[in-house]
Formats: sequence, structure tokens, C-alpha cells
Amino acid sequence: MFDELIKQIDKCLEGFLKPVYPEKIYEAMGYSVMAGGKRMRPLLMLLAFKAVGGDESDERIMSTACALEMIHTYSLIHDDLPAMDNDDLRRGKPTCHKQFDEATAILAGDGLLTYAFQLMLCDPTLEFKPKYTRAAAEIAYLSGMGGMLVGQAVDVESEGKQIDAKTLEYIHKNKTGGLIKAALKAGGIIGGADEETLKLLEEIGEDMGYAFQIKDDILDITSTEEVLGKPILSDEKNQKVTYVSLYGLEKAQKDYEKLSLAALEKTKRLGGRAKPLYDYIESLVDRVK
Amino acid sequence: MFDELIKQIDKCLEGFLKPVYPEKIYEAMGYSVMAGGKRMRPLLMLLAFKAVGGDESDERIMSTACALEMIHTYSLIHDDLPAMDNDDLRRGKPTCHKQFDEATAILAGDGLLTYAFQLMLCDPTLEFKPKYTRAAAEIAYLSGMGGMLVGQAVDVESEGKQIDAKTLEYIHKNKTGGLIKAALKAGGIIGGADEETLKLLEEIGEDMGYAFQIKDDILDITSTEEVLGKPILSDEKNQKVTYVSLYGLEKAQKDYEKLSLAALEKTKRLGGRAKPLYDYIESLVDRVK
Repeated sequence: MFDELIKQIDKCLEGFLKPVYPEKIYEAMGYSVMAGGKRMRPLLMLLAFKAVGGDESDERIMSTACALEMIHTYSLIHDDLPAMDNDDLRRGKPTCHKQFDEATAILAGDGLLTYAFQLMLCDPTLEFKPKYTRAAAEIAYLSGMGGMLVGQAVDVESEGKQIDAKTLEYIHKNKTGGLIKAALKAGGIIGGADEETLKLLEEIGEDMGYAFQIKDDILDITSTEEVLGKPILSDEKNQKVTYVSLYGLEKAQKDYEKLSLAALEKTKRLGGRAKPLYDYIESLVDRVK
Repeated sequence: MFDELIKQIDKCLEGFLKPVYPEKIYEAMGYSVMAGGKRMRPLLMLLAFKAVGGDESDERIMSTACALEMIHTYSLIHDDLPAMDNDDLRRGKPTCHKQFDEATAILAGDGLLTYAFQLMLCDPTLEFKPKYTRAAAEIAYLSGMGGMLVGQAVDVESEGKQIDAKTLEYIHKNKTGGLIKAALKAGGIIGGADEETLKLLEEIGEDMGYAFQIKDDILDITSTEEVLGKPILSDEKNQKVTYVSLYGLEKAQKDYEKLSLAALEKTKRLGGRAKPLYDYIESLVDRVK
């Protein structure tokens, strides 16, 4: 249903990451970005943009959409490093430091993060419209000290420790929720939404992010390496407290459904133009990977 | 001469990095930022701002100045990692991954880079003035795919290889020059300089950055570990081609002086208000560390 949009996103990403000198760093960045993600964050952003009636002729929005995918990918590359999760496989392919080397993987992550801000901010017309800056500011905050980065920091700190429910909630809501919230809010901002609508989009992102992470915990137990494209039971291996280990599989599944329904309910309140966003979020509910 | 300004920068940095939950990541970020750098990039930015007649009551400029120091520090933290230069000492103190651990050091670098953009972009007044966005865009480009990051990428790739003069020039001009250029240009942009003046500031940055890196190569041979606060002869140890190994100490010294003079000459052309910038650049010429 969203294949056409995904194709557009992929084409833009490929264009942005076409290797020029020094080729190797572009190749490492491109390798990880083009390794076949779901493009969930760019999609959420573009659909939120449509949902609030954003001007379809606005071409710069694709830069911000691609920037979100780059920030997501940088976080995966760094999370996979030997000093962090030490994962060899990601989406069924060797991780960046396995395919290249550790130094290149560190730089590729740094490069994607910095390039993302370049894409969001550079404006050949020198107009620098406030809405793009505000979207980039939100993305900086929610991918950093107000979301993804601090969620990951607490996650790393908690490894092998018996953490409480509050800490797990903090990790889940920030680590994954940060960038999902950022995607929805940025789409709303660039689409010209009012503050109330932005608040609603943020809440949808919060529910979705939390749900998404609970689902990840569930899949780590119930799926297979073939389907996921990465090792299963990795949480147990890394002695990680998860939503499932804390509350059991049944409650995890129930809470996942409750949060997903809440996100869908709120999306409905955005009105008729939000139908594609609604459909996309609904399609995620039954994801198997 | 610039102690008062450095104190102001330090105070702002300390304020921005005051630990809140999750404290450990703020501590790691703060540890490296407050480990006693020269604050060259914030200083250059603030002095360029003054040189072009920037409005002194403009308080948001300190956020961008501090952001430059954070970006500089993130690059040092990641460069020091075992997979990169594997350095144990920086400014006479244990490097971030030695003081904390590798995962924390990777995250602290990522955090500083992301936080830098948050500081540059967030605007509680929601005005998002174009000049700040343009400065941030330049900084993104020159610290990333148009400067520091690609310089570092070629540097890492070149280790242990016999590289030619052109490649060494690329590394030197980008790796250090990128952020120095960014500092001067950002100061000019926020100060309201015209395009011609911005061009001149960029050229000053280019000369300075190249000179600075040549001086680093010279000091690695002629200084001591006590003075530098880091091991000397590290280039030889890492089998690195340097300006000195390529051209000899005498020509390196001569070219260093020539580039420094060119930078000073151009700074003079900025007019009387550029006197503090001139003095500061002059004070760097005879630096011993």
C-alpha cells in the first residue's frame, strides 16, 4: 500500500548517498542505510504531513524525511558496535563494522548524523523558513537529550542489572519513542499544523514508540532468526530486563494491543486526511518483524 | 588577554552540561568538554562576530559558540577510541573511554554532536531567525561531509599507507580546517556580515586550519609529553605521513609562518573592529601546545 512512497524515499536516500570522494565513507553510510529498513520514520513523517494538510508541492520535505532515516541508521550502526550490543547481523546482513571495520562504522554513524542536519538545514535559496528549523530542532531534541540518546544511555547502563519497571519504561519510551515522536511532530510542523494538533501527533508517537518496543521484546522471544534477520533471544543472552521478562508474554501482548489501539484512536481524531496515516499505523500492529 | 571571554564560555558550557537524569551520560560529556581545551573555536566565532560589528546584546550567540566546542570535543572523544587512534591521554587526563568505558564514550560523542544542534536550533520564542539556521547549516556541512568528518575519514584510511602531498593537504585542510572555517563563518553570519566578508572569513579559516595542522605535526616532533599533555612522536608510532615527514622540519616551519601571516593579513582587511580577532590569531602563531 505504501510501496510507491517507500520507493520515493529509497530513491532520495540513494541520491543523497551517492559516493563521491572520499568514496569509502559514503559507501559505508550507504551500505547501512540501503540495507533494507522499513522506512517507518520517513513514512510516518510524510503521512503526518499529509494528515494535517501539508502542501504537496513542498519538495524540501523529502530532505527531512531522509534525514530521519539517516539518524535512525546511525543509531543502529553505533548500537551494533562491539563495545555496545556487539551484533554481527542486522536485517540479515553483516553489520557495518563487520562489513567494513570498526573505525569506519564509528565514522559512518557520525557522518550520517551530521549529514542529516546538513540536509535538514541547508537551503540554497537562503530563505531558511522557520518551519524547517523548528522541525530540525525537535528532531535534535528527540533524537538526543530528550529522547533516543538518553534512552540508549540508560539501556547500556542497565545491561546485566535488575532494573525496575519505571526504568524500563524510560528506556522504551525514549530509545524508540523519541525518533517516532520526532517523525510525527516534524511532519506536523512542516505541514503547518496548529499547536493542539502537534500535541496530538506527539501523543500518537508516544503510544506507538512504547508499543513498538514492547513488540520488539515479544518478537525476540516468539520469532525466528530467519524472519527477523537478526539473532533471537538476544535479550536473554545479554541478560536484559524486557517488558516480557518483567510482566510475562500475555500481559505484554495485551498492553501492546492497548497502546496500538490508543494510537489508532488518536489518529482518527486528526480527521479524514489522516486515513493513510491510520492505515499505516494499523499495518504496523500485526508486523512480524 | 582573552581570559574573561574564556571564562564566559566555560561558564556557559558548564551550565549546558550540568548533570540531570540520566546523570552518567552528562558526566561523560561534561568530563571531556571541561577537561581544559583552549576554546579556540568558540573564541574565533565570538571574535569574528565582533569583527563584523555583531550586536553585543545578542545572547543566543553563546549557544552556537558552545555548540562548536561540543562538536570539537565529540570528534576528539571518537578519535581517541581504541578502533581509531587508541589514545589513553588527552590534555594530560585519561581519555573518555579510559575514564568511563567504550560504550559510554561512543554515546558521549553522539550526545555532544546531537546536543550541539539542539542548542543551535532550539528557540523558545519560536522565531527561528534565518541567521542562526544558516550558521547551523554551515556548521553541519563543515563539520561533516564538507570538512571535518571527511578529513578524518581519509586520515583513518591513510594510516600506514604512503600517501601523496595532495591527500595530506586534503586531510589537513578538512580535518582541522573544517571546524575553524565554520567558527569564523558562523560568527560572521550571526554578526550580519555581507557575502564578501563571509568569503574573507572563510579564507582566514582555511589558512588557519592548514597552519594549525602543520603546527600539530611540528609539535609532535619538537615538543614534550609534559607540555602537550599527550604522547609525542605518535605520528611516527602510527606510521603516519605528516607535513614534516613529507617536506622536512624547516619547510614545515616556513610554510606554517607563511600561512599564519596570510591569515593575519586577511584579518587586517576586516578593519578596526577586527583587532581582537587579529590579536587572538597572532597569539596562536607562537603556541607551544
